[in-house]
Amino acid sequence: MTWSGPHLLDVDDFDWQDINRLLALATDYREGLRSDALGGRNLALLFAEPSTRTRLSFEVAARRLGAETFVLEPLSSSMVKGETLVDTVRNLDAIGFSMLVVRHHRAGAPAVAARYFGGSVVNAGDGWHAHPTQALLDLFTLHRELGSMARRKVCIVGDVLHSRVARSNVWTLNAAGAEIWLCGPSAWLRGLSGLPVVLSDDLDMALAGADVVMGLRVQKERMAAGVSLGDYIARYQVTEQRLARAAPRAVFLHPGPINEGVEVTRGVARGPRSLVLEQARNGVPVRMAVLATLAGSSVGSAERSYAGSRG
Amino acid sequence: MTWSGPHLLDVDDFDWQDINRLLALATDYREGLRSDALGGRNLALLFAEPSTRTRLSFEVAARRLGAETFVLEPLSSSMVKGETLVDTVRNLDAIGFSMLVVRHHRAGAPAVAARYFGGSVVNAGDGWHAHPTQALLDLFTLHRELGSMARRKVCIVGDVLHSRVARSNVWTLNAAGAEIWLCGPSAWLRGLSGLPVVLSDDLDMALAGADVVMGLRVQKERMAAGVSLGDYIARYQVTEQRLARAAPRAVFLHPGPINEGVEVTRGVARGPRSLVLEQARNGVPVRMAVLATLAGSSVGSAERSYAGSRG
Amino acid sequence: MTWSGPHLLDVDDFDWQDINRLLALATDYREGLRSDALGGRNLALLFAEPSTRTRLSFEVAARRLGAETFVLEPLSSSMVKGETLVDTVRNLDAIGFSMLVVRHHRAGAPAVAARYFGGSVVNAGDGWHAHPTQALLDLFTLHRELGSMARRKVCIVGDVLHSRVARSNVWTLNAAGAEIWLCGPSAWLRGLSGLPVVLSDDLDMALAGADVVMGLRVQKERMAAGVSLGDYIARYQVTEQRLARAAPRAVFLHPGPINEGVEVTRGVARGPRSLVLEQARNGVPVRMAVLATLAGSSVGSAERSYAGSRG
Repeated sequence: MTWSGPHLLDVDDFDWQDINRLLALATDYREGLRSDALGGRNLALLFAEPSTRTRLSFEVAARRLGAETFVLEPLSSSMVKGETLVDTVRNLDAIGFSMLVVRHHRAGAPAVAARYFGGSVVNAGDGWHAHPTQALLDLFTLHRELGSMARRKVCIVGDVLHSRVARSNVWTLNAAGAEIWLCGPSAWLRGLSGLPVVLSDDLDMALAGADVVMGLRVQKERMAAGVSLGDYIARYQVTEQRLARAAPRAVFLHPGPINEGVEVTRGVARGPRSLVLEQARNGVPVRMAVLATLAGSSVGSAERSYAGSRG
Repeated sequence: MTWSGPHLLDVDDFDWQDINRLLALATDYREGLRSDALGGRNLALLFAEPSTRTRLSFEVAARRLGAETFVLEPLSSSMVKGETLVDTVRNLDAIGFSMLVVRHHRAGAPAVAARYFGGSVVNAGDGWHAHPTQALLDLFTLHRELGSMARRKVCIVGDVLHSRVARSNVWTLNAAGAEIWLCGPSAWLRGLSGLPVVLSDDLDMALAGADVVMGLRVQKERMAAGVSLGDYIARYQVTEQRLARAAPRAVFLHPGPINEGVEVTRGVARGPRSLVLEQARNGVPVRMAVLATLAGSSVGSAERSYAGSRG
Repeated sequence: MTWSGPHLLDVDDFDWQDINRLLALATDYREGLRSDALGGRNLALLFAEPSTRTRLSFEVAARRLGAETFVLEPLSSSMVKGETLVDTVRNLDAIGFSMLVVRHHRAGAPAVAARYFGGSVVNAGDGWHAHPTQALLDLFTLHRELGSMARRKVCIVGDVLHSRVARSNVWTLNAAGAEIWLCGPSAWLRGLSGLPVVLSDDLDMALAGADVVMGLRVQKERMAAGVSLGDYIARYQVTEQRLARAAPRAVFLHPGPINEGVEVTRGVARGPRSLVLEQARNGVPVRMAVLATLAGSSVGSAERSYAGSRG
């Protein structure tokens, strides 16, 4: 394992072997492995953007590993008095926190935090940049359902331009050998040409034969010039009818929160192909694996070969 | 005991025998019984309305029983992004919560939550509908002070129409055999005629000989057409003078927060007849009893007959 | 030790001997002493003003001593419904809290709380009045760096008039035998003439030969008539150049949050003379000493003479 921290800021912090070992450890936690890897440590959760599942699953994960958790929300902190992120982080370090989970609306905020924090920083989503633990839990969920992702076709549909989830998933799915399609209105595909993906503004073509369909949240306030909500729904909403073009046993993922009736119908979101709740379920063991590894405590059981390994 | 969960959504979830057993267990907790009935469980407190005493007493109760507690407030959760209650609850379930305490401004929200949550849901107050643990702790408080409530006269005064506390108390007090009067401006008495109570817009008559006077919060913003705040105070404020019409040892209850000088004078609210702080004190053991019972761990000691039993 | 609580409301709650014993105990905690002095106790943190370091260091301190902590923020509590501080405190007492840490924008709020709370109240900063644990940790930090403070010159510069930190530090530093200068625009020096300090609106004079320079936050909204932000920066900003007038090994302190570029340059705030992070670090052991002493558990090791003792 080449990666052992001290931080998790982006998916490219680790290589494919690292990913496999993290997911093997996550499997152990999902199957009930107990650990006190974070016993006696103080972990701060600095969430400058609202969150339900990410904050709670990190907090549940940390406490299951024995940590004391402390939630820091900007509205009730000195940030309302104009304290900078750097000063907040330097103080958290001095107060004795050894782990810091950061969600921030500014891309790069966790990397800035890491420069001023003596312990480990984990990126829980920063601007349009990265959401590495989401990509890990998505891959974990897919491995459990489909086995190896090599040569599997994955169609990511929605506001791919502004999505940290899409960016991080492209990296891990590419590392896993998948064939990735990004699909959405052409206005949202510009600037993505350097990625190892196929770009398409034609959903039917992107869905054809796909093993995985990943919906992304479409935020009404980001509807660009030339893209109306009505047009978006007409052309890109994932419906049961459209999903028929995908592979027979195709699965549907979404990082949440879902706008039912916008990017996806309720029928698909809650239907038999949906792995949405499985993603939420897997958030805890995957984050336990990340935190325990950062704490330098990845155990021997993670050394065994991992079922979902590449190729 | 016919009731053992999985949810507590309304007072009519249980019968009189259930109530007695819950209150017997609460007596044990109030007297210092220790228990690890919720050991290792994750309990989420979803409070979509502000609260001090209800949230804290549930949280203290859960931790005393060994649970890990997690507070979820809408302002810092994905609910600000428009996530529905149903989606939030489905995710909490997937993340691994086994108990969920819900306060919500919409009547029926906890019942909706219960349909999508695999564990136990406890209603901590929903709109105008119900506040079952408040009614239980009120009855517990009255039993400790007065013994059996059979044939006792209880006068509930204030905005009885919009009060979940009044609705839930009518059910439990009626089950306990009390004679219940609801009193307030006639505009607030309409639509209550199906209840097993006496309705009166005459406070002096309602107070006459009452053993218990229960004040309700009067919210200025709900002052209806034909009811001004000045009129309300003049006709319905519970004063020491008016309280003289009640029974000699009558007690005063109020669920809080109190508007001193509106629905009650400070003299009464903090006077020798007030059980207001006793209600706050009893919130913890009563909620411990509810949570422990839901966890399937009501202990043998609760089997013994309960001092405050009916008749 | 003459002081053992039940409250810590102001620095003059204790005498010099008490301070020495508290700081000796803090030294033990800083060096790793473990204690369960608050085991099984419920501690509430009522923060009516935003805070990062004070709230977190109290919370970390309390949990290290074995307490269960509960954060109460006005926005999500019944205070938004107009509940008074007195009612909130009476309810916290009834619910079973034995310790209450209060930060409030109104001077005297913790003292009011103490009248209605059965356990111990700790002032975590009230209006312009006092911030006793900040003064204790500042003295602790200085003792560790400089040894005895007797006859040391301390220059406190900034909005000394509106600063609870300045007020509390004057008391403890005076008790420690230091020579204290308060420096700022003359508009902010009026009304301070009764204090055992030298008042000066000339920063160069106040800095001359100082062993300690303590910066205070200058809030733009408090810029008084006749004091512009530009003028303030020009005349009172602590710069590396100006700091050259102080003693050769002078140290810089600031309670935070710092407005870099206003009351102090980044070079000074983060430079080799800055003890700002050391202050944050010392907040936890000093608050542990306060809480443990209030819990009646100051241990024997605190009886030994303290290195930083006076004279």
